Formats: sequence, C-alpha cells, structure tokens
Amino acid sequence: MNVAIVGLGLMGGSMALALRQKNLTHAIIGIDKYTVHEAEALELRIVDRCVNLKSAIKLADVIILAVPVNELLKEIPKVLDLMTFNQVLIDLGSTKSLLVDSVRDHALRGRYVAAHPMTGTENTGPKAAFADLYQGAVNVICDRENSDESAMNTALKLFDAVGMKTVFMTAKDHDKHVAYISHLSHVSSFMLGLTVLNKEEDEKNIANLAGSGFESTVRLAKSSPEMWAPIFAHNKEYISVALDQYINHLKAFKEMIDQNDEQGMSRAMRQANDIRRILDK
Amino acid sequence: MNVAIVGLGLMGGSMALALRQKNLTHAIIGIDKYTVHEAEALELRIVDRCVNLKSAIKLADVIILAVPVNELLKEIPKVLDLMTFNQVLIDLGSTKSLLVDSVRDHALRGRYVAAHPMTGTENTGPKAAFADLYQGAVNVICDRENSDESAMNTALKLFDAVGMKTVFMTAKDHDKHVAYISHLSHVSSFMLGLTVLNKEEDEKNIANLAGSGFESTVRLAKSSPEMWAPIFAHNKEYISVALDQYINHLKAFKEMIDQNDEQGMSRAMRQANDIRRILDK
Repeated sequence: MNVAIVGLGLMGGSMALALRQKNLTHAIIGIDKYTVHEAEALELRIVDRCVNLKSAIKLADVIILAVPVNELLKEIPKVLDLMTFNQVLIDLGSTKSLLVDSVRDHALRGRYVAAHPMTGTENTGPKAAFADLYQGAVNVICDRENSDESAMNTALKLFDAVGMKTVFMTAKDHDKHVAYISHLSHVSSFMLGLTVLNKEEDEKNIANLAGSGFESTVRLAKSSPEMWAPIFAHNKEYISVALDQYINHLKAFKEMIDQNDEQGMSRAMRQANDIRRILDK
Repeated sequence: MNVAIVGLGLMGGSMALALRQKNLTHAIIGIDKYTVHEAEALELRIVDRCVNLKSAIKLADVIILAVPVNELLKEIPKVLDLMTFNQVLIDLGSTKSLLVDSVRDHALRGRYVAAHPMTGTENTGPKAAFADLYQGAVNVICDRENSDESAMNTALKLFDAVGMKTVFMTAKDHDKHVAYISHLSHVSSFMLGLTVLNKEEDEKNIANLAGSGFESTVRLAKSSPEMWAPIFAHNKEYISVALDQYINHLKAFKEMIDQNDEQGMSRAMRQANDIRRILDK
C-alpha cells in the first residue's frame, strides 16, 4: 500500500521510518509545509518522495496527518473532500473533540480514524524522528463507531505493525484524560522552566546546580510552542479545570510548608508516592 | 584512610561504592538506624563492617553523614563532640543554613565540611545505591572559610575521586538556589502526581495513557517523604517564595488559556524553551 504522510516532524517522520522498517508499504510519500523539512526527510530516507497534497492524495491508499492540531482542524475536512471511499485518513493529533466534530456530517466520515499515539519527545523536525518512537506506546482511537470497519482495520494494521497497543474511548473522554496525563505535565514543566529562568536573571549561578531531578521535571519545557499553543486552545475547558486542581494542591502544600506541618506534607507525599503503581506497572 | 558512613541509603551507599572503586580507603565502616539496611549493605559489600556510632568515630579518619536533614541537625553537633582535631566530618544534606548555624561556635567547626552533591534518584535504601551516582555531578561546598584547610583538602580529595566538580558558595546562597533548582521540582512533581491520582478515582482509564512525558515530569513524586518533609521544613522561607512565583506563573498561563491568548502562551513557552541553554550545556 502507498502511504502519504503530511507533516514530517517527530511524529510523522517516525511513523514513516517505522512503517518502512516493517515492509508494510510500497511507497511513502511525504508532504511538509517547510521545504527544508522535505529536503531533510528525503536526505534521511524517511520518505521516498515529496509531492503536493493533491497529488499525494491521488497516489495514496492511506493518508496520515501529523501536523499541529490547529492545522488538523483545517486539513481533515479538506483532505476528506479530496478523497474517495477506497482511501483511509488517519490523524495523530493530541486533541480529538474539535477534530471529530469538524467532520461529523462529512460524507466520508467513515473513512477517517481519529487516533492519538501517547508518545513523543521534546524534539521536533525530521532529524528528531526515529523508528522506535511508537514501539510499546499506547494508542488511543476515538469514537470508533463513526469509522467504517474497513478503514478501522487498515488503521489498526498500521498501528499494530509499529508496535502500539490501541485502546478505544470517546473523543470527550480522551480530551479529559489527556488534560491530566499529558497536557498538565507540559504546563507544569513550561512554568517550572520559566520560574527558574526568571530567578536566574538575579542569581547567575543557579544553572550550575541543575541535576538529573530538575532535568527530568523540566524536560517538557523544551517542547514546541507551535505545537502546544493550539493543543491548549483546543482543550481549554479540561486543561483549565486540571490546572485549577493542580494550583490548589500547590497552594495547600505551600500552606503546610508555611505552617511547619511536616505531618501534612508527609501524608500528601505518601499519597503522591502511589504514582509508582501507575508508572511501574 | 578509614571512612565511616552514617546512613547507608542511596547517597551514603553510593559514596561507599564509589570510594571503594577508587581504592582510596582502607576500610569503610557503615552505620544505619535500620538493622535491615546494615544487613543489606554488608551483603551487597557496600561496607566492610557495621559498628555503633561511637566505635565508628574512634576508627574513622573521615565521617560522612548521609541521613535526612532533620537527623543531620542532631548528628552534626553530636559527632563533632566525639571527634578529635585529626578527623574530618562531611555531611551530604540538601539544605545547609540551619546545619552550619547549629555548629557555628563549636570548637571543632573547622573539621566540618558542609557539602551537597547535586545528584540522586527517586529510590532509597542500600539496594538503590550504585557506584556511578556521583560521576559528573556538581558538588556544592558551603561557607568554605569556616573549614580548616586540611579538612577541606581531605574532603575535596574524596569528592574529586568520585568524579564530582565542586563549586563554593555561602550556605544562604545555596539554600536560595536549591529552592528553585531542586526543591521546587520536587513539590511540582509531588503535586502533579497527587492531581492525577485524585482524578484517577473518577476516571479509571487515565493511568493507561501515561506516556514518557508524564513519567519524566512525575518521576520525583516517587521520592521519600521521610527525606523531603524535613528539607521543605528547613528551607521553608526560600521554597515558599519560589512556590509563590511558580503558582503565579501557572495562574497567568491558565488565564491565557481561558482568554484564548495563544500569542501570550506561545511567548511564555518560547521563553521557557530557553531552558535548553541550561540543560544542554
């Protein structure tokens, strides 16, 4: 089968490399809005060739969209308009409700599979891509009942091939859950970075002290604003609630510190330790 | 030389393993308040033998204290009282002002070197120890002018041997800086864990979606409350200010999300991206 991948960054580029490794595809066609990304993707043999979107849709059996969610909101209806009933459209966006809503009544809605692989790194562009990105990751497919069985089977074949374990949920549930398990982590990390950088303006030595704990916690602050601003905008209701809860926990903990309430602090930290159950399973 | 290490957890145990690897020491004597830790440390050949504190001080040229900071506050004066002018005391605690203040006027203050290796993991106990923990880490020594030159030279010899780069600052500056670069990360991570765990009570599937980004950001939430409650208590003034600044950044970002201010979000994230400069140097 021929696969067209729109967006040759970390997600799209890694998908191309993984699919190529599995020998599932005949040709992989790439499209990126940045010419330099297309050149890099060709040079790194991530894709076989780059053509414009219309030509790619004519050539491809499966079209995978791996661009920021604000672009997905425009691209998904546009690509469905250009597709036939034999083709499959998959998106890999980090939010889902607005996207599925945008094509709810589209004649080809059944050919579209709304997916979100729960993987990534803080790096961007074709050079950040690597074949193992998807190996072992959880993949969420939303509103499966709105996709045709044949389209779903094709998508699952690809997702299985690159090593992902797919779970199913509604787009609404997905957006609520990722607000906590992914988007909140990013806000937390971005703001930690900002707090330390602001302090650094007064305290020049502060950066010298960065150890592995800080590095781990602040890693996501390296992430792309171009990708994340639209995600936060798409999922604002759920993120806003999650952030409120996070801020309230922080305030309560600060109050315990201010009041010398070591027992209260210990209790809260012991509760938080239970995160091992989630991470170590 | 003989080295006594009090506290055979991650920090003390790893120091023992690293010193042994460098063949700098004749015997390594261990002391831990938990008998089971002493047994583990002997079984894992982390230390040569375990004796009580008084005997250890009689045998050792250098005593290294690697216990939580609330215990350090009691142990540092107690050990200095039992020491002679030929011996050296080093502590590895994560806060420094209260500790150095507690022995400011002690007759043997000069034999004490107040250190803080900026390294660690979220794991505890002798089994968590490994010889490379200190390799390449930054070590902070505080108030160097209050330590005798011979005591300082002995301490630096050990710290250099295990691969650390030592920097010097006042205990006050240390406590202010680590409030941002270490303690804030821990609070941020503990509270992120708590927020997600609370949500999980309503949303059973949420844990399935944890990816590498969440794992990285929440890793420190696995840390020991027994170690961290005293650190937060010791350094409460600086941590409280740092937490206030962090909470204000989070509130401002939440406001931007609520107001659909994508430009403001992007600007804040681009500023935070500058953290690469600190992490990648």
